[in-house]
Amino acid sequence: MLIWCIFIHLCKIFKFREQRYMIRFTAAELSLLLNGVVEGNPDIAVSELAKIEEGTPGSLSFLANPKYLPHLYTTESSIVIVNKDLALTAEVKCTLIRVDDAYSAFSVLLEKYNTIKQNKSGIEQPSYISQSATVGDNLYLGAFAYIGNNAKIGKNVKIYPQAFIGDNVTVGDNSVIYAGVKIYSDCVLGKNVVIHSGTVVGSDGFGFAPQADGSYSKVAQIGNVVIEDDVEIGANTTIDRATMGSTVIGKGVKLDNLIQVAHNVEIGQNTVMAAQAGVSGSTKIGENCIIGGQVGIVGHINIAKGSQFGAQSGIHKSITEENKKWNGSPIVPYLSSLKTINSLSHLPELERKIHELEKTIKELKEGK
Amino acid sequence: MLIWCIFIHLCKIFKFREQRYMIRFTAAELSLLLNGVVEGNPDIAVSELAKIEEGTPGSLSFLANPKYLPHLYTTESSIVIVNKDLALTAEVKCTLIRVDDAYSAFSVLLEKYNTIKQNKSGIEQPSYISQSATVGDNLYLGAFAYIGNNAKIGKNVKIYPQAFIGDNVTVGDNSVIYAGVKIYSDCVLGKNVVIHSGTVVGSDGFGFAPQADGSYSKVAQIGNVVIEDDVEIGANTTIDRATMGSTVIGKGVKLDNLIQVAHNVEIGQNTVMAAQAGVSGSTKIGENCIIGGQVGIVGHINIAKGSQFGAQSGIHKSITEENKKWNGSPIVPYLSSLKTINSLSHLPELERKIHELEKTIKELKEGK
Amino acid sequence: MLIWCIFIHLCKIFKFREQRYMIRFTAAELSLLLNGVVEGNPDIAVSELAKIEEGTPGSLSFLANPKYLPHLYTTESSIVIVNKDLALTAEVKCTLIRVDDAYSAFSVLLEKYNTIKQNKSGIEQPSYISQSATVGDNLYLGAFAYIGNNAKIGKNVKIYPQAFIGDNVTVGDNSVIYAGVKIYSDCVLGKNVVIHSGTVVGSDGFGFAPQADGSYSKVAQIGNVVIEDDVEIGANTTIDRATMGSTVIGKGVKLDNLIQVAHNVEIGQNTVMAAQAGVSGSTKIGENCIIGGQVGIVGHINIAKGSQFGAQSGIHKSITEENKKWNGSPIVPYLSSLKTINSLSHLPELERKIHELEKTIKELKEGK
Repeated sequence: MLIWCIFIHLCKIFKFREQRYMIRFTAAELSLLLNGVVEGNPDIAVSELAKIEEGTPGSLSFLANPKYLPHLYTTESSIVIVNKDLALTAEVKCTLIRVDDAYSAFSVLLEKYNTIKQNKSGIEQPSYISQSATVGDNLYLGAFAYIGNNAKIGKNVKIYPQAFIGDNVTVGDNSVIYAGVKIYSDCVLGKNVVIHSGTVVGSDGFGFAPQADGSYSKVAQIGNVVIEDDVEIGANTTIDRATMGSTVIGKGVKLDNLIQVAHNVEIGQNTVMAAQAGVSGSTKIGENCIIGGQVGIVGHINIAKGSQFGAQSGIHKSITEENKKWNGSPIVPYLSSLKTINSLSHLPELERKIHELEKTIKELKEGK
Repeated sequence: MLIWCIFIHLCKIFKFREQRYMIRFTAAELSLLLNGVVEGNPDIAVSELAKIEEGTPGSLSFLANPKYLPHLYTTESSIVIVNKDLALTAEVKCTLIRVDDAYSAFSVLLEKYNTIKQNKSGIEQPSYISQSATVGDNLYLGAFAYIGNNAKIGKNVKIYPQAFIGDNVTVGDNSVIYAGVKIYSDCVLGKNVVIHSGTVVGSDGFGFAPQADGSYSKVAQIGNVVIEDDVEIGANTTIDRATMGSTVIGKGVKLDNLIQVAHNVEIGQNTVMAAQAGVSGSTKIGENCIIGGQVGIVGHINIAKGSQFGAQSGIHKSITEENKKWNGSPIVPYLSSLKTINSLSHLPELERKIHELEKTIKELKEGK
Repeated sequence: MLIWCIFIHLCKIFKFREQRYMIRFTAAELSLLLNGVVEGNPDIAVSELAKIEEGTPGSLSFLANPKYLPHLYTTESSIVIVNKDLALTAEVKCTLIRVDDAYSAFSVLLEKYNTIKQNKSGIEQPSYISQSATVGDNLYLGAFAYIGNNAKIGKNVKIYPQAFIGDNVTVGDNSVIYAGVKIYSDCVLGKNVVIHSGTVVGSDGFGFAPQADGSYSKVAQIGNVVIEDDVEIGANTTIDRATMGSTVIGKGVKLDNLIQVAHNVEIGQNTVMAAQAGVSGSTKIGENCIIGGQVGIVGHINIAKGSQFGAQSGIHKSITEENKKWNGSPIVPYLSSLKTINSLSHLPELERKIHELEKTIKELKEGK
């Protein structure tokens, strides 16, 4: 109930507000692209996307959610993508493209569309590449971007304007570093990594030793951050370098915006964290965990793989049992938390009842 | 009680630490500016601001809060701005400027002062403007700022150094984009929009489809962000682009720092959100809501207009009743939350009482 | 229990993943550096660091935690730093360097190491220095960094690429401003200040006056931020300028990442705040406080010096008693919060008991 929705529910198509990117496809072309079968006019063309209930001639819609089926018979859209096994109960005006899975087919289309949009290439000027840096083929480097000494940039990498790649940083093939990302020296990024604007990788861990006079003395943070392949990180997230060794973001991890990952944290493969969650130093999170928004995790603990945490949970202890759901601050098993939340709403009433019981019992005792 | 103060209480004037900007005004000039009436020497001049109780000759103070009235008779300030209807009970040394509303008059002065400070203009070099971009009259473009392909920049816009305006972005007249702001491609900003440093507009929504092997496949995010007129957004806030369609920040909305707004969220006109609050995907927030600091809101819900939420609230369900106050995580009506918080503090004591009652009743039963 | 670990526990040495920075030292050189005594071969040299249990010939380890003592007799490390008074119970293969405090000695080494790494100097091009700005000796200015009008930069300052120093800003000697930091006009930074990437200092406070029509009118924010000597601030933190006067970060304060400090806040000397905490406007925090992660603090309150707050606490009122620990939202004394958390886990059971008691008493009464 409380887990933030971290996966999108693409149950509707919203109409584009902007017409700029519209590209013209025929039903035949689309069916080729989607490995589908045309039912209707293969030459009819579309140049924009529309919700099925708001379609106009020239637009493409899709139908995955049965709730929207009635619109199929009335839509003005020229083409509708539907599931292979959809049985029609009346005539349709539009051309259908039948595919194995209309939802997936739609995702494929979006992906193609996006690839077209993001075809940046070349090196804009002014930009800064240290003479000791090496860069792979087909680099896009935006203006005012900076590549430091001995940095190694792989093939097909896109580094948007004003991004900062510190000394000795490695960036793997096909990675995308958006505008204004800052990667401190010595950090290592794998292949197919995507990092959104404003995110900081490799800032110093928060390590200070208290002194007798009440002041703090800085503990040097000389480790780095290692981001493995296929990781995507949202905007304005912060990942601190390790004191020594590495803070590790495992293969396939997805981090949302404004997340804090402290020094020496390790996050296991395919774990996802929603926005504004935070992990304290040296904590190890297992694989395939799902961590809700604004969750806080203390330092120096281990979290078993497959654990799930509701939004705003506070995780204060290690979790050894795998694949369990938790909620609350401090966390309790998810079902317990629901019971407690329920009882909590009765608490003032319970308090009243207790006072009444005390009174009644006093009377009973005195009556005896 | 728990709602973070999101409106300032300008009940005192703090003395300026820096003298740089001091400009000399006479009482006559100030009264003209403020549509007031001088009582005293119209030629006396001031060149700095001071709290009424700390004023020195040459300084200007104001008196709005009656609590500070006694200082009016002893202040060394040369000029004090007061309410029109203030009745004096003793002689004052200073020159008064009587206005309809001393508080508002003071705001007007601050605004003038600020305008003087922010008179940046011209195009600093090096900066980057795509040949296909169009920019309006009187642009300020700071060094290292970037304007992408086909971007349309209105009149009197200020874009500070190192800001990034992506391809096809529209920025309306009189908007101010502070240093290092990142606006991804295709986003649309209205007129009089102000965005503070480090804020990211249009980063990808957090959309990933779980795969059979435990990994996630990215769902392309091809929508945009639309920010309507008169919106102000604080520093390091993140607003994700829609999967399709638009994430919408309504006219007059004010967002504080470090706020997360997920894909396809819509925020109604004149709603204000305090720092570190977060809204999950596809949620629609009505007009004129007030949302406290560190509040979390789940996705796919609707929040009625005029709703108010205490700091750190967790909003897990749609709210249909308008203009109501809520608090807690998960939220309950504000008054209920106060009762629950109160009972909560008695909880260990209640637990003790229940054990005692059980014992007493057992004795009673056995005694029977 | 719930306080986020904000100080590192450097109880192990992690092996370096990167070999780039390895520098060769003999036992004699190290003992000179650390003011220690060599026990073994003074000419043996090391060129990397290793955990004592993972050491190889040519590596340096240290032993501070007695738990790791057994490894001393089996380690392959060439040199191990130990406490002066360590008594050996068997023969060791490695060379020892005995020091007063092995842990501190190790910190010293890290510090030296780090200094070597961060020896940036010179002015990279293109960068922007206003003609009216003044800069001290030995400045490092990264490419695409910006120094505004009348800014005053002290000696030995490092300003990394893409940082923004606004008009009239003062930066004290030996300060380090990392890549992409934004300092708005008029702010004042002391000596030895360190600010990590993405942090914004001096953005407008969140001050808006509600109007009769439901819209908000901006209150100009014309104060500044004053950061005193020896302050370190993490990544993507935001510190708003005062409405008037100054937001003040006291000497020696340490702020972690993604923290919000609102306008006119004052934070006392040597106070530390963990990541994602937030402080609302005009609140004054005393010296030597410890504030956990994701804590929220309302505006216009005072917090006594030496106060400590558990993670995710919500502080809704002034605290006058010094050196006390607090927890919960809203906060209660730390021990009370533990009791309440404990009772809370029994709450559904307590509710059941109350219903049972009511039933029993009803029966008792009717039995009478």
